[in-house]
Amino acid sequence: MILAADNIRITKKTVRQAVEEKDPKPIRALARRCEAAGAEAIDVNSGPLTREPEERMAFFVRAVQDATDLPILLDTANPRAMEGGLRASRKRAILNGLSLEPAKLREVLPLAKSYDVDVVGYILRPDGQVPADAHERLSIALELYQACLKAGVSKERLIIDPVVAPITWNEGVFRNQELLSVIRTLPEVLGFPVRTIAGLSNLTAGAVDKEKKQALETAFLPMMAASGLSMALLDIFDRRLVQAAKACRLLTGNRPFAWGEMD
Amino acid sequence: MILAADNIRITKKTVRQAVEEKDPKPIRALARRCEAAGAEAIDVNSGPLTREPEERMAFFVRAVQDATDLPILLDTANPRAMEGGLRASRKRAILNGLSLEPAKLREVLPLAKSYDVDVVGYILRPDGQVPADAHERLSIALELYQACLKAGVSKERLIIDPVVAPITWNEGVFRNQELLSVIRTLPEVLGFPVRTIAGLSNLTAGAVDKEKKQALETAFLPMMAASGLSMALLDIFDRRLVQAAKACRLLTGNRPFAWGEMD
Repeated sequence: MILAADNIRITKKTVRQAVEEKDPKPIRALARRCEAAGAEAIDVNSGPLTREPEERMAFFVRAVQDATDLPILLDTANPRAMEGGLRASRKRAILNGLSLEPAKLREVLPLAKSYDVDVVGYILRPDGQVPADAHERLSIALELYQACLKAGVSKERLIIDPVVAPITWNEGVFRNQELLSVIRTLPEVLGFPVRTIAGLSNLTAGAVDKEKKQALETAFLPMMAASGLSMALLDIFDRRLVQAAKACRLLTGNRPFAWGEMD
Repeated sequence: MILAADNIRITKKTVRQAVEEKDPKPIRALARRCEAAGAEAIDVNSGPLTREPEERMAFFVRAVQDATDLPILLDTANPRAMEGGLRASRKRAILNGLSLEPAKLREVLPLAKSYDVDVVGYILRPDGQVPADAHERLSIALELYQACLKAGVSKERLIIDPVVAPITWNEGVFRNQELLSVIRTLPEVLGFPVRTIAGLSNLTAGAVDKEKKQALETAFLPMMAASGLSMALLDIFDRRLVQAAKACRLLTGNRPFAWGEMD
């Protein structure tokens, strides 16, 4: 399980200002902190970037890559920002992401193909809504897979995001239990060891009590890890969560145990 | 998932002295602390009790039951101590435990039958050794089940303990991954919703670094919970672990989420 930091996001004031003012220093500092805290990939979350999307995303990506060589995910709903990021990136970035929304299929898939990069496919309905049950989730995953093939994107490029539900939602508990079985079942349904990614902070969206939030995330992460999750998008500055993730890696790995790997 | 405290054990000096001197106070105090910390059952771990087994176990059980009404497990390898505990117990106790060892089958099963109590069956070979793989584990579980039926013990009385392996053991990592699948598969193999129990502290037996030990246990518990574990035997004084257990219960339960249940 790879740990991707969700900490570099435009909703943070320092990040937003840095992007607006094209000041790379705060972004570099944040990227360095992410790597030092154990990140193995960084989600560059720019939001839709309505103004100057290509230029701003290019700046954002360069600022992160000034500080680190870690793989990055280009997390934006704006395909123009995505392309700006792809062009600026020193190495292959991951598109985050794709869904069955017609506009996404039309605009994101060709980028994945022409830049030959990985792409995260969200298990959401074409209208952006959450599917009703595990069965629908699996068939949406299958449609994403088929859309990739049709667009000439290799199946190995697809990373499925089954979309963690906020636990406080109606049926949130049940949906997340189904999510575990979806993660476990996907490789069999798609017929190859498809990678999966999940954004852990969704689970506790809106939570006020930090300790309870942390306890819930720290409990749900091992459940996803044991189901075979390939990449976890999480708060890399949460030390306890990162330690839990390292424990997960040891417990789900195929090597003899070594205490040193918990450091 | 029911939380059973593993904190009342004769290997602790205060407990050993209290049992030797027949002084109930330290045991009562410990039992009260267990209940206050969130225990829903208490493992009364007396060890083999070679001297005065019936009398000492009876004293031990009474001392715990002076302080709490929680269900208890009689954790001893000595059937005479078990019977002393069963006789002294104000309500049905759980026998902990049974295995395919001939002496256990001969001496523990009749107690389960005549006192009509639950019995923990360890997935171990008749010689007490750990089975080689998941397949052997499942067939040992099946043999335990058949031994119960043959002895006239109702199948609903059996609680299977798949035996957590110390992570530092040769193949410890792999064995515990298999354990998860055994917990998940058992109800189907036995053909009824058989209950399971696991002793979490085995995982980190011999661990020196408390924080790493805690992180590993806190990661493995949700994995077992998501696999369907019915009862976790753990250090109820480990606040973080207990909070993780509460989170597990919410995440694996079938009720809408409520923050209050994390208290």
